[in-house]
Amino acid sequence: MAAGSSRSPADLARLRLGAGQVALWWLGQAGFALRAGGTTMLIDPFLSSGHNRLVPRPFAPEQASGVDAILCTHEHIDHLDGDSLPALAAASPDARVVVPEPIVSQVTDLGIAPERIIGAQPERPVELGGVTVHPLPACHGVDVADAYGFGRELSQGRYRFLGYVVEADGMRVYHAGDTVVYEGIQDWLLRYPPDVALLPINGRDHYRESQNIVGTMDHREAAQLAAGLDVGLLVPMHYDMFAINLGFPAHLVDVIQRHYPDLAVMLPDRGRPFVCSAR
Amino acid sequence: MAAGSSRSPADLARLRLGAGQVALWWLGQAGFALRAGGTTMLIDPFLSSGHNRLVPRPFAPEQASGVDAILCTHEHIDHLDGDSLPALAAASPDARVVVPEPIVSQVTDLGIAPERIIGAQPERPVELGGVTVHPLPACHGVDVADAYGFGRELSQGRYRFLGYVVEADGMRVYHAGDTVVYEGIQDWLLRYPPDVALLPINGRDHYRESQNIVGTMDHREAAQLAAGLDVGLLVPMHYDMFAINLGFPAHLVDVIQRHYPDLAVMLPDRGRPFVCSAR
Amino acid sequence: MAAGSSRSPADLARLRLGAGQVALWWLGQAGFALRAGGTTMLIDPFLSSGHNRLVPRPFAPEQASGVDAILCTHEHIDHLDGDSLPALAAASPDARVVVPEPIVSQVTDLGIAPERIIGAQPERPVELGGVTVHPLPACHGVDVADAYGFGRELSQGRYRFLGYVVEADGMRVYHAGDTVVYEGIQDWLLRYPPDVALLPINGRDHYRESQNIVGTMDHREAAQLAAGLDVGLLVPMHYDMFAINLGFPAHLVDVIQRHYPDLAVMLPDRGRPFVCSAR
Repeated sequence: MAAGSSRSPADLARLRLGAGQVALWWLGQAGFALRAGGTTMLIDPFLSSGHNRLVPRPFAPEQASGVDAILCTHEHIDHLDGDSLPALAAASPDARVVVPEPIVSQVTDLGIAPERIIGAQPERPVELGGVTVHPLPACHGVDVADAYGFGRELSQGRYRFLGYVVEADGMRVYHAGDTVVYEGIQDWLLRYPPDVALLPINGRDHYRESQNIVGTMDHREAAQLAAGLDVGLLVPMHYDMFAINLGFPAHLVDVIQRHYPDLAVMLPDRGRPFVCSAR
Repeated sequence: MAAGSSRSPADLARLRLGAGQVALWWLGQAGFALRAGGTTMLIDPFLSSGHNRLVPRPFAPEQASGVDAILCTHEHIDHLDGDSLPALAAASPDARVVVPEPIVSQVTDLGIAPERIIGAQPERPVELGGVTVHPLPACHGVDVADAYGFGRELSQGRYRFLGYVVEADGMRVYHAGDTVVYEGIQDWLLRYPPDVALLPINGRDHYRESQNIVGTMDHREAAQLAAGLDVGLLVPMHYDMFAINLGFPAHLVDVIQRHYPDLAVMLPDRGRPFVCSAR
Repeated sequence: MAAGSSRSPADLARLRLGAGQVALWWLGQAGFALRAGGTTMLIDPFLSSGHNRLVPRPFAPEQASGVDAILCTHEHIDHLDGDSLPALAAASPDARVVVPEPIVSQVTDLGIAPERIIGAQPERPVELGGVTVHPLPACHGVDVADAYGFGRELSQGRYRFLGYVVEADGMRVYHAGDTVVYEGIQDWLLRYPPDVALLPINGRDHYRESQNIVGTMDHREAAQLAAGLDVGLLVPMHYDMFAINLGFPAHLVDVIQRHYPDLAVMLPDRGRPFVCSAR
């Protein structure tokens, strides 16, 4: 499923995709470039060079032309990167920016024009070219003090942390954002059953929470969630960007081999897109 | 890259593949169904129900209609399965059978018509519909007593153990068969640089060899070979079919995370095909 | 450090221990037999044959002669096994039974004589022959509904879940019971710095909690806790007894190799005791 070497999101438009196919390019951490339905989007692009990142950015934000939409799942720097978003928005001046509605002002504060920004909430699908984006709740926290919840208390009742199911041409990709597995997540997802699930695996624990690192599901939960959804492919993400919050993809593979031998898992190259088809 | 649920190889013809794409379906052990260039082939299908197999066969040989070619890399039962090959050949009566030239008689002895059989050797590409198959040497053994070599002493100087690079529409898939990494394997492969490498990971050791289990490359060698070839995707295979010869795909992932973080690896579902594109 | 094959706790008295040495015998799950200071104790012995245990009991409770003390950390069946405790108490009629004070009545309800029972609480060391036991809080739950806490609301302010530091002849072994890592656990432990830490590794997650399985620290937290205490040896426990609550000791080893390469870890045989010395 490798699909050519890419230097920038604009290269994705040159891929020859069949009907019902999506090209995905892992940018490290929770960042993905996605091409589907004639639309190129970035989800949670973390493209600034600092912040003690362990994995180099795949391209500078200034190089990111050809992007139709930028989706951010929540306000943490590795998901909504204020240091690179203005340059990214300038490089792709037609790109819409989709963020949870309660944090729209954080994007306008960066100088992005308000008319480019879409405030997303669950049950309000967003149409972007040939793609429909279904926002759904993520259970996380701005800080450990308010975790784990949907951030509604901080946000006039609106959901502050989101995941997105991106649907194009009969194919659905679920990007979980940062979420623990919560009561009801499966019901949300069964409204738009994903073919591919991009799930965090690095988990949460006392020591990381003591440093105000709000956690996510771990590799065991990611495997069980994906198996319960009968996805065609699980792609683990959100690990190995920061020394303080590593993950162990091999542990995911162990869990899958032991418990869910019929679940396909892909550990992508961060330098090349790959192509997925509907299951 | 999941690409629909399949019940038999004939289902592969319904996949909508883009240009330069190949559909692969892992059948367990070294078995793959492959669809490319309008051609459906089975490589090393191990479809008999006995032999203490740990993983059920995905379909019975009688169900395997729609196959254009059956490729076997060598004579061991999990690669050339004499118990199921006649039924398979009957279910797809137009299928050609490609095996190393020195073991053609093993196929005719099963009652397969000689005109259906192609005896393969390195440097003699085989054209099968829209696909070109490049045979290349594998270094293995019929028994531990004659391992590790190319089987030429047993075979009037001809190669008895093969791998195949399947090429269609500018995309190449390497099925290694059972081979250790040998001096020169990379040179052979650089003649037809693969986009995808299907490599054994279960290795070899004293105890298994004491039981006459001839070995293969292990997970470390598979990772290093794939990285050296700069493949777009590594798919481990040839493990977990027999209790006596298990493998540890998580250990492959550990090696990749530690040494080759830019190498993509896929652990496929044995129930569904997936689609690969040229790197 | 293996020290002979044992059939029953009485065999431990025959080990020739040097000064400052402790013999430990893992009985599966959180169960250990321990010999130190001329005293033989069982901690969390789970010796009934049912309950869908995956690992056979090492001996029947009727065979457990020679025991001086039985310590239970909390009331769950795999720690305080009401099905086997009466037979165990009968086989070692001089054995004292040490349990958290709020659950003493659960032991008398089994017909164990009250004068044999010691209700334990933190900051009240228990002397048992040549051994001093320091109880300290564990943070757990009777049910998920009351987790994670010390059970004081259910127990007139007293600690319902305990760990024990067993001290003999200058050597200390910490048995964590079932606990998550909580704020303050390290301070408790630094009062009696352990040479050896017996820690659960199976963790907690949404799916297990949904089935009312109250969790513990996971393998990452266990490694970090042990490293922070600079123990001489970490022994993981509390995994692989029940299909519903497995653990992955290899994942602990991975974390130690990556982050704490100077931390010794031992995965004991469940059939033989081993000897530890003070670090």
